[in-house]
Amino acid sequence: MTRTRATTPGPDASLQFDSRGGLRHLLTLQGVMRTQVQALIERAEILRRESGGGTRPLDLLRGRTVINLFFEPSTRTRTSFDLAAKRLGAQVINFDIASSSTVKGETLLDTVHTLEAMHCDAFVVRHREAGTPEFVAASLRSRAAVLNAGDGNNAHPTQGLLDVMTLRRHRADFAPLRVVICGDIRHSRVARSDVHALRALGAGEIRLCAPRELAPAPEEFPGCIVRHDFDEAISGADVAIMLRLQKERMQDAAIPSEAEYFQRYGLSSARLKQARPDCLVMHPGPINRGVEIAADVADGPQSLILEQVANGVFMRMAVLAELLAPDRHAAIGA
Amino acid sequence: MTRTRATTPGPDASLQFDSRGGLRHLLTLQGVMRTQVQALIERAEILRRESGGGTRPLDLLRGRTVINLFFEPSTRTRTSFDLAAKRLGAQVINFDIASSSTVKGETLLDTVHTLEAMHCDAFVVRHREAGTPEFVAASLRSRAAVLNAGDGNNAHPTQGLLDVMTLRRHRADFAPLRVVICGDIRHSRVARSDVHALRALGAGEIRLCAPRELAPAPEEFPGCIVRHDFDEAISGADVAIMLRLQKERMQDAAIPSEAEYFQRYGLSSARLKQARPDCLVMHPGPINRGVEIAADVADGPQSLILEQVANGVFMRMAVLAELLAPDRHAAIGA
Amino acid sequence: MTRTRATTPGPDASLQFDSRGGLRHLLTLQGVMRTQVQALIERAEILRRESGGGTRPLDLLRGRTVINLFFEPSTRTRTSFDLAAKRLGAQVINFDIASSSTVKGETLLDTVHTLEAMHCDAFVVRHREAGTPEFVAASLRSRAAVLNAGDGNNAHPTQGLLDVMTLRRHRADFAPLRVVICGDIRHSRVARSDVHALRALGAGEIRLCAPRELAPAPEEFPGCIVRHDFDEAISGADVAIMLRLQKERMQDAAIPSEAEYFQRYGLSSARLKQARPDCLVMHPGPINRGVEIAADVADGPQSLILEQVANGVFMRMAVLAELLAPDRHAAIGA
Repeated sequence: MTRTRATTPGPDASLQFDSRGGLRHLLTLQGVMRTQVQALIERAEILRRESGGGTRPLDLLRGRTVINLFFEPSTRTRTSFDLAAKRLGAQVINFDIASSSTVKGETLLDTVHTLEAMHCDAFVVRHREAGTPEFVAASLRSRAAVLNAGDGNNAHPTQGLLDVMTLRRHRADFAPLRVVICGDIRHSRVARSDVHALRALGAGEIRLCAPRELAPAPEEFPGCIVRHDFDEAISGADVAIMLRLQKERMQDAAIPSEAEYFQRYGLSSARLKQARPDCLVMHPGPINRGVEIAADVADGPQSLILEQVANGVFMRMAVLAELLAPDRHAAIGA
Repeated sequence: MTRTRATTPGPDASLQFDSRGGLRHLLTLQGVMRTQVQALIERAEILRRESGGGTRPLDLLRGRTVINLFFEPSTRTRTSFDLAAKRLGAQVINFDIASSSTVKGETLLDTVHTLEAMHCDAFVVRHREAGTPEFVAASLRSRAAVLNAGDGNNAHPTQGLLDVMTLRRHRADFAPLRVVICGDIRHSRVARSDVHALRALGAGEIRLCAPRELAPAPEEFPGCIVRHDFDEAISGADVAIMLRLQKERMQDAAIPSEAEYFQRYGLSSARLKQARPDCLVMHPGPINRGVEIAADVADGPQSLILEQVANGVFMRMAVLAELLAPDRHAAIGA
Repeated sequence: MTRTRATTPGPDASLQFDSRGGLRHLLTLQGVMRTQVQALIERAEILRRESGGGTRPLDLLRGRTVINLFFEPSTRTRTSFDLAAKRLGAQVINFDIASSSTVKGETLLDTVHTLEAMHCDAFVVRHREAGTPEFVAASLRSRAAVLNAGDGNNAHPTQGLLDVMTLRRHRADFAPLRVVICGDIRHSRVARSDVHALRALGAGEIRLCAPRELAPAPEEFPGCIVRHDFDEAISGADVAIMLRLQKERMQDAAIPSEAEYFQRYGLSSARLKQARPDCLVMHPGPINRGVEIAADVADGPQSLILEQVANGVFMRMAVLAELLAPDRHAAIGA
């Protein structure tokens, strides 16, 4: 597994699901069924109400221990998981990699087994190597759950879930939607999880737009339309999901400058006019203003970007609750 | 806003106060009224008693989320705010800048708006640039409160409040007090906030003592006496507030060594004898022993330094309570 | 106190014990009596049951503040103390040294006194200098307790306690046990605390095995058998405690490679066969697989390594409870 590998490791579905098809871990959205996505959205909406929008602490996970194992820096995702777990009453250990024994050369698995031995109920794992959360899940010796918080270019399943949760608040029916995802599709875990989530809910048409060098292998996204011209791709779109550009990718794509990237693949208000008038704008953040999206579009009336962030906490609460307290789910949902 | 700018940006009072003149944020003590300072001290004293000196957890802020946004290293201030919030029952997120998305170039405001979207009730902000907390407060999209935990050379309002709280425990009447503040006044946010707090409570005379190069612009401290000779300035003083010397400032002041600085501006026990016999000694910490203050004075019977630290937690509890739970204030005070 | 000093500073027993001989701090196991070790093990076992193995939060330390002061990186020990304190209901402040005022040159003692002034009930101290926890304890101005989480080559008392707790679950009677400790004995705080704990519980024979350059001064471990040949030392052993090898020590011992170290001092399954058939294998972690221990032995049926980790949390709960809530101990034990 190297950092630049563009293909996705085959997820081991049997690992993610228990014998009755329920979620045991959340590693990828590939293979997750429509009813499961819908149930998680429903649960997130319930938790949103029950928590008073994040102001009323719940105790669904009282006594549970959640460990954030972040091997990549992250503002929003780690804080979002942190708040989600704490607002459900769990103890959270933020595992600071820089100050951890990994500097002494402890292997990832020894770290995981050590933390398991101290008893923990969930690992939230982010790692630059695709497949790390799956690797951790396969190696567990306890009943702990693994939540993938982003692994290489493979998957970012809670992002996919929060994106469709957010979208569903504005568009009840996904069937007629034309969604364009634009940016470095090739290396984007967000694109992959978004496509899986949108597919699960039956989105009508998914267009993937990227510079030729950053386009995905065609076989990886069967049924999606791949385009290299953003003006063409956004035409008539109902939803535009813009991806963050990693600076180092610009060079791979032989794009000489951020201004040049913005001119060709950035979402300006002029370009947004080529989409449908009510086209919704999404971005997983953090935003590069003036690179992949204009500031006025990011802050404009069609932007759902901060709603995505808000829903992220509720969706992560839902996933934690689903994995760690499935039985109390029924009671709440009843 | 540069690091070496010695003048203070004009605070926007309308931002700090709500329409009834109540505190909406705590950005500066400039413009804060005597009754407000007194009310905060009173509230801090009540919380001191109610919390059993920090041993009995309260739930005044249960369900509230406080985010510590520290862009400068800090021992005491961050831990003090952290303990204050937790002892009131709030959730605290310590935002570790080194491990955050700022390494990916996320702007300060995007960070703030993202955290707001996750729902938070207060931002505690420390930044080396004067005006950052005000900038954050002006940019908020929610009802969150901003607490300035020190911004450049501008203000450190909770320090000013805890200093007068501490002093009032020893001196009921501020009118006859002659207070000398000694050190790098020019670049000191502590000096500014102390002067505002002392003024609000009617301190009789404030003397500012600094090397000529580190003295403030005269117009910035109207009514204060500026001196360059510490022996002269401390003569007959009731209170001596010593400021921490940043090493790099010594060079600005053409002072060749720490020993030389101590000889001219350090508070030795010999020099303390020139003040009134019961002169109280204060320092915001962390102390440079043997630079701005002698170890035996810092640890001596006239020193209030550790009392300042202790009161800091209660004052920060009071400010958090005032900003986040003003109505419950009345009930407690009743 | 330098990093390479191999001798142990004499612990000041009067500091560790109160006037009735009860534990006031936990600095070292030297001088701790058999009954005290047994009582702590008993308490840890009770807390293990009462906490449902770590799943049921207790409130024995509600309102107490525990500060983790770690000046060395640590995965397991810091997280273990963190979980132990939180599972007893305490507030925990993890003091991040890199982001603290020590960068401004604040001295250790000023840091400690500052934190004391904010009120805290316990300091958990890890430092590369032997004697630091003792130094902190001697300098306290409050009733706070100091728990040594590892200081230089001096002591790691909770490790010693959790090791004998783990061993006692498998061997009720220590009298007939032949225990071999192998590795860099000279610089190992684990070896010292293990020897003290094993002695307190009356272990029959303790063999210390190390390369000649890493062997202890003979007078430091009176009554222990010192060997340089591991095959000889492990022969007929009931317990093998393997120590982590610091890479830089290999050079001190003139051992050219990890493979060479493993060949001479590593615990392979072949070598383990020279011990008694039911010989138990222990290691404080983190493990260097293939250096001091073979992976198959570390993961094998005779290994107690993960049990040690699990018991570590309960033992740290017991020590915290003993030091911070001794009276409630009686009630629970009754």
